[in-house]
Amino acid sequence: MNPYPRPMGKLIGELSKLPGIGPKTARRLSFYILGQSKNEVKTLSDALIEARDKINYCSRCNHLTEGDICSFCSSDERDLSIICVVESPRDVVAMEKTGEYNGLYHVLHGAISPMDGIGPDQIKIRSLMPRLEKGEVEEIIIATDPNAEGDATAMYLAKLIKPLGVKVTRIAHGIPVGGDLEYADEVTLSKALEGRREI
Amino acid sequence: MNPYPRPMGKLIGELSKLPGIGPKTARRLSFYILGQSKNEVKTLSDALIEARDKINYCSRCNHLTEGDICSFCSSDERDLSIICVVESPRDVVAMEKTGEYNGLYHVLHGAISPMDGIGPDQIKIRSLMPRLEKGEVEEIIIATDPNAEGDATAMYLAKLIKPLGVKVTRIAHGIPVGGDLEYADEVTLSKALEGRREI
Repeated sequence: MNPYPRPMGKLIGELSKLPGIGPKTARRLSFYILGQSKNEVKTLSDALIEARDKINYCSRCNHLTEGDICSFCSSDERDLSIICVVESPRDVVAMEKTGEYNGLYHVLHGAISPMDGIGPDQIKIRSLMPRLEKGEVEEIIIATDPNAEGDATAMYLAKLIKPLGVKVTRIAHGIPVGGDLEYADEVTLSKALEGRREI
Repeated sequence: MNPYPRPMGKLIGELSKLPGIGPKTARRLSFYILGQSKNEVKTLSDALIEARDKINYCSRCNHLTEGDICSFCSSDERDLSIICVVESPRDVVAMEKTGEYNGLYHVLHGAISPMDGIGPDQIKIRSLMPRLEKGEVEEIIIATDPNAEGDATAMYLAKLIKPLGVKVTRIAHGIPVGGDLEYADEVTLSKALEGRREI
């Protein structure tokens, strides 16, 4: 016999679809929801709808934005001469958390992956080019993921952009700070060796 | 600089309020929500509202129900001669999962706890009594939690119900199946010893 009333079973089912939420957590969350005031549940429910409905991609850099242009592209406090190219909006968040970067972004929404049928035209590479035409941009920092797809994308971008006379760099690969040399994989370690600098 | 558009920050904030959901998980879930279709997000949002709005407590046993009477109380396949008394609807779910119980329930929505100012009148004890008047009920199984409050509630109920000529039992306390004798706490172990049965 199903111990839950129908709407409860439905809520558990819906919550279980979320990544990292198993049936047990979904059950716990559902019981929590039942214990909240109607207003509180409405606020959560509205936040879901509003986020999905109102957020779209910046027409310049493809980062998340509520309007047409994102807060980075429309800010007058950012350095317009540098663009950091990343694979996803999450990477923008990660870069911002460093507090070390003050330039603009360009979000590719993916990486070149011939194995998956993703070529340069399947990700947002083309829209980067008009941004370089004005001559304001002096450096493109490529911060794609350190894997085969990220590497391929970085190589492709470098080939495309260098002829325009714009400096192209890639963020360093190496041993993570706080990591243990002994447990670093050999590829990371050889990259770290390759990227060694005089101290 | 805030890397999220406003509705995204709001959604992350709302999700972070849920139990067991930290800011990191909330961020991950929010990104997932942005990647879902509007329909999918609407389904989740509606499930939240519907669960909160449509679920109330069974007027007979206080378990969750969509209508007036829950599926247990309105079923003609359950054994009407036994009522299992539990503290919360979650406990009903746990009992049902055993597949061993086929009687009715009574959900107290709490336990007697003088320390917290919760007496018999603050939980749903009174509504149990009319259910015993018809004379159909032969046994009350008390399945309150195995702690001070659960014990106090069980003792109170036993005193109240026994004079009516109804058998009152309590589920056994002992070593959990699959548990390790060595690591059982002494109270559990002495309860297990006390409850020993001939094999």
